[in-house]
Amino acid sequence: MPAEFSPHYGTIVIWAERSDSWQYGGYKAREAFAKVINAIAKDEKVIVLCSFQQYDNARKMLDSSVKIVEMSTDDAWARDVCPTFVVDGKGGIRGNDWGFNAWGGLVDGLYFPWDKDNRVARKVCDLLDIDCYNKRDFILEGGSIHSDGEGTIITTKACLLSEGRNPQLSQAEIEQKLCENLGAEKVIWLENGIYNDETNEHIDNICAFVKPAEVVLAWTDDQTDPQYKMSKSCLDILENSVDAKGRKIKVHKLILPKPITITKQECDGLDLCDGEPTRTEGERLAGSYVNFYISNNSIILPAFGVPQDEQAKKTILEIFPERKIVQIYARDILIGGGNIHCITQQIPQYNK
Amino acid sequence: MPAEFSPHYGTIVIWAERSDSWQYGGYKAREAFAKVINAIAKDEKVIVLCSFQQYDNARKMLDSSVKIVEMSTDDAWARDVCPTFVVDGKGGIRGNDWGFNAWGGLVDGLYFPWDKDNRVARKVCDLLDIDCYNKRDFILEGGSIHSDGEGTIITTKACLLSEGRNPQLSQAEIEQKLCENLGAEKVIWLENGIYNDETNEHIDNICAFVKPAEVVLAWTDDQTDPQYKMSKSCLDILENSVDAKGRKIKVHKLILPKPITITKQECDGLDLCDGEPTRTEGERLAGSYVNFYISNNSIILPAFGVPQDEQAKKTILEIFPERKIVQIYARDILIGGGNIHCITQQIPQYNK
Repeated sequence: MPAEFSPHYGTIVIWAERSDSWQYGGYKAREAFAKVINAIAKDEKVIVLCSFQQYDNARKMLDSSVKIVEMSTDDAWARDVCPTFVVDGKGGIRGNDWGFNAWGGLVDGLYFPWDKDNRVARKVCDLLDIDCYNKRDFILEGGSIHSDGEGTIITTKACLLSEGRNPQLSQAEIEQKLCENLGAEKVIWLENGIYNDETNEHIDNICAFVKPAEVVLAWTDDQTDPQYKMSKSCLDILENSVDAKGRKIKVHKLILPKPITITKQECDGLDLCDGEPTRTEGERLAGSYVNFYISNNSIILPAFGVPQDEQAKKTILEIFPERKIVQIYARDILIGGGNIHCITQQIPQYNK
Repeated sequence: MPAEFSPHYGTIVIWAERSDSWQYGGYKAREAFAKVINAIAKDEKVIVLCSFQQYDNARKMLDSSVKIVEMSTDDAWARDVCPTFVVDGKGGIRGNDWGFNAWGGLVDGLYFPWDKDNRVARKVCDLLDIDCYNKRDFILEGGSIHSDGEGTIITTKACLLSEGRNPQLSQAEIEQKLCENLGAEKVIWLENGIYNDETNEHIDNICAFVKPAEVVLAWTDDQTDPQYKMSKSCLDILENSVDAKGRKIKVHKLILPKPITITKQECDGLDLCDGEPTRTEGERLAGSYVNFYISNNSIILPAFGVPQDEQAKKTILEIFPERKIVQIYARDILIGGGNIHCITQQIPQYNK
């Protein structure tokens, strides 16, 4: 599995529509999604999956270079429902089609049903004319793993060992599945992710590879914040780990935004999900700058309209001096439960 | 507009599902469609457009080389709703996105609504990453025109001058639109097509180019058949026409199947359309062997289980000695109102 910072053929995004995930029938999220898509489209091919109903609208809002393809989905989390692509080093590519159960199925999943999402990976492989490994018996989302492209995977126990995914498998068995299917040799297990992250704490909201043996980690110095202990635990593990090649891992701390809570007005903009509100006024959202996306020439970085936005941008610029930093106001994506990384999936470069 | 007998990049087919067009919820039609698709797939890339609901089923029934793409449609007539492709002779290609109103709109159209069908052409161009000419103000179906690839178009007045399409345009204006948008110089106008053909008598059921200045014409010697006068009229016009290059046109008569009528059992297998039966027991269907498809190495020719099947095959073999003749039992396609040519649309070869 190539690292995200390796060259891409392109990026897949799913158009936001679901009115219990996104305010005002998806209206505000679509504005933010369009900015993300059009920014990535400056660097590489973007394929946007969307419904019949939104096709014309997406066509109007997106650059003409963006390829729009109709596809049924249950929501808009390309990271978690698209294939995880693996390459053979000779220009060949395949997609892994994991099982998807909406982040926990009947145990603690976030919506029901999820059958459309579970069919996306296979259909994306068909679309790209590439072969697909059917791995639907193993529940995994793309947002729960990061690869350095050199044999190391990072993930969180909170997510991968959760009851709602693969409770019949031990940690060792899950590790073996990851290594086998991703061509990896080592898995670094963090305990947890971001506080109140409803994905059971995906890795992609707390920690990401920026180059081999180098990561960013979402960080707060506020010891009264429940996040402090969680980030500190990650730091301790990372500082005491070596990667698949035996290298120590350099950790860049990336400031967290001040705690972001959802307002009454925002809650009112969300339709009910199965008769219940999706969010409650004052609920803390799992905001994190680590949820950026690396496109071929840029870093697409969330902004939240808080003082930490500038500092986060500065840190990222220092880490990626060769890339352009495109910071996009992403509160309307965060309300859906994830951020820019969660709504993207890279397709590594390959020989068509 | 290249001729169908020129080299193809591939073929588009739409999967049959509509239960008022196709017996038993589309079950029998899908068996026939699968045979057609898998036969063409031996020669060239086939792209099958289908709904979310039928995707897995189509994947099971179709060869693995067939590319399946989800797309919303109102029915399964790729010929009439896909783009008409035009090329520039330098490897470039564009799609013409005509207006589609279900063969006559509110005047004498065959179903309502048709908004999904009307969006297919644009989406197919997006899918192929090619540009699209928006010609939706002009109502035209692919089945109502044939091109020799050398500047000549044949069509029928019965269809193109029908009240339900472009009543505001004169014959001369329609001819001009065809020439402009298809890169043609001459239109040969036949008066009519096949008896009881509910498309207002599409050209592709009565007459087709088999090479420049050479056509097949659906024919019966039975002067008591209302079709006799119609075919004779076409013959007279063709024999008294020259093509865009001034050549006389050689006409191969292609026998018609004996009149085919729909049975009570077949009618019972069709759901109601807007509260009314689609077909009536004993109704004559517009069966014709001219409704074949030319793939890169083969002719995909309908069979109806009647004695004329063999003779039609013999004639086609004489006309296309260099191609394989694949004859497929197509009564279950005919019941939907068209045949093998109607469910296909060729994509000419181009530089990707």
